[in-house]
Amino acid sequence: MIDSWYHRPVAAIDDQAARAALERQAQLTKPPGSLGRLEELAVRLAGWQGVAQPVLDTVWITVFAADHGVAEEGVSAFPQAVTTEMIRNFSRGGAAVSVLAREAGAHMEVVDLGAVEAPGPLPGVHSARIAAGTANLRREPAMTAEGLEAALAAGHAAVDRAVAEGAHLFVGGEMGIANTTAATAVACALTGRDPESLTGPGTGLDTEAVDRKAGVIREALALQIPDGADPAEVLRRLGGFEVAALAGAYIAAAQAGTPALVDGFIASTAALAAIRLSPGVADWLLFGHCSAEPGHAAVLEALGAEPLLALDMRLGEGSGAATAVPLLRQAVSLHNRMATFEEAGISS
Amino acid sequence: MIDSWYHRPVAAIDDQAARAALERQAQLTKPPGSLGRLEELAVRLAGWQGVAQPVLDTVWITVFAADHGVAEEGVSAFPQAVTTEMIRNFSRGGAAVSVLAREAGAHMEVVDLGAVEAPGPLPGVHSARIAAGTANLRREPAMTAEGLEAALAAGHAAVDRAVAEGAHLFVGGEMGIANTTAATAVACALTGRDPESLTGPGTGLDTEAVDRKAGVIREALALQIPDGADPAEVLRRLGGFEVAALAGAYIAAAQAGTPALVDGFIASTAALAAIRLSPGVADWLLFGHCSAEPGHAAVLEALGAEPLLALDMRLGEGSGAATAVPLLRQAVSLHNRMATFEEAGISS
Repeated sequence: MIDSWYHRPVAAIDDQAARAALERQAQLTKPPGSLGRLEELAVRLAGWQGVAQPVLDTVWITVFAADHGVAEEGVSAFPQAVTTEMIRNFSRGGAAVSVLAREAGAHMEVVDLGAVEAPGPLPGVHSARIAAGTANLRREPAMTAEGLEAALAAGHAAVDRAVAEGAHLFVGGEMGIANTTAATAVACALTGRDPESLTGPGTGLDTEAVDRKAGVIREALALQIPDGADPAEVLRRLGGFEVAALAGAYIAAAQAGTPALVDGFIASTAALAAIRLSPGVADWLLFGHCSAEPGHAAVLEALGAEPLLALDMRLGEGSGAATAVPLLRQAVSLHNRMATFEEAGISS
Repeated sequence: MIDSWYHRPVAAIDDQAARAALERQAQLTKPPGSLGRLEELAVRLAGWQGVAQPVLDTVWITVFAADHGVAEEGVSAFPQAVTTEMIRNFSRGGAAVSVLAREAGAHMEVVDLGAVEAPGPLPGVHSARIAAGTANLRREPAMTAEGLEAALAAGHAAVDRAVAEGAHLFVGGEMGIANTTAATAVACALTGRDPESLTGPGTGLDTEAVDRKAGVIREALALQIPDGADPAEVLRRLGGFEVAALAGAYIAAAQAGTPALVDGFIASTAALAAIRLSPGVADWLLFGHCSAEPGHAAVLEALGAEPLLALDMRLGEGSGAATAVPLLRQAVSLHNRMATFEEAGISS
């Protein structure tokens, strides 16, 4: 594992460009700091792009989809068939993230990493099927070592496509019935928190079902991670293909020098795993929103992350991150298009 | 005062359309409620527009500008000349709200209600000058009765222009050196809170200057509002032309059946005054963002309002509300363009 691609260093941030952007912000016709986090976003984008006036033309969204063996434990409000049905819905443009991608002028693609039912060829859907879903993490490791490597590599491949198209921002989404169970198990293993405190309703479980789901996760942790484990083993034993692919994508994006805008609970859990595998990844991430899924706050705390939005969303798919894209666009426009005090002839 | 236009009833909300929108939300391909506040926004817009599938094509931004006699007390980090200089900057498109308006495809206009230096004819700037600034509220009422009526009417006139253009949303902004002093005084009078707890740095005062500003507000309250006062008198004695115009605009918008998206501290204070003048106005307001100006939290609490964004912005001009416009657009797009479970053939 030591020589795996995901241990290679991430790209360097251009501090000089970030400083130049900060100086520009001080000259714009507003009280210093009064655009708050929009100023911060412009400065970070400058450091990432290595220019004092960054752009945000091309936004790339990849939604990773896969099924989960643990669905057989009754941990989701929806039947497993929905994973493939939603892949079709993404392809036809009817899902939330499809609509948000269009609204943001973002390119969107879907990667099928292993829905139980193969959706067949569909526009905008890449087939990178590893297996017909993971194994049931309550009983055995969710993935083989080869499965994990394939999932991480699928994330890398998505970023390669994004970079080839000149993407200024990578957004990863996920779809997979029962994937909050996998993500919660991973989050517990990585943060040391209790299943009872992190487990939530996902797509809409009632209290009793949430308790049952927490019990499944508790048993999985006891069986799979008896003495703690390194992050790759946590992903392999408890994760899902799409969770691992997101982690791989965040690492590949940081290595390629492309910032990633992280979505909600599942994506943030993948980001935490990515950072545990390669700490430098943290410098290349933005967090789009705080999900209503209860585990998200704990994962954000472990990440030291402050998301841009808090709108009680809990859909996944990359939808929360896609909702935050206009804020980045506004930050860039303000930075580049506001007049300076000198240009406007304003007394300071 | 009893017969003033601003006491006339506001438009009715169409509950049937809101219910139809809620039913549509339940059919869209997502777990119920999982788009959080974006669902709520679509449903509210439906109730306001009286259709199950609302639109948000035309967004109207009016920035009201005026000067303040209290500026002579040294309560701002910027000289008074900046008010007129910023009117020119708005006109040339170089201010933050100008950039955000273009980014949002919104129509923007400026209304000069009385900068000390008249800016002269400028593209996109209406002259509705009441006086060359208000009187110093530390020493005398900021406005005459006629001045207050003219300011409220200027807000009404802006809404009339917006309605004539078919605006689906009204955004009010403000500009005026020293106007956080006036707004803080109004907020204290309306909420019963201390000047010391509500007064903040505005455009960037240091701690000592904030204390001085709070002292000015305390003296103004003692002199002008010895035994409490009705909201119109609070606006007249302590407000600014642009604060009163915003209040008038919110009332006129509610009467016309046009929702308004409220900006930060000053706009929210104007909204609170509007609601005290005409309680039904509350049903027609959305709140764009929570400002870093400390008084905003108290005013939002008095309003029972939960803004959409919290990005540490504190610029005014309508900039925080303009930043939230894309969220409303996304809410409408999701509502109208997502597939239903039936359309997508998804198991529920």
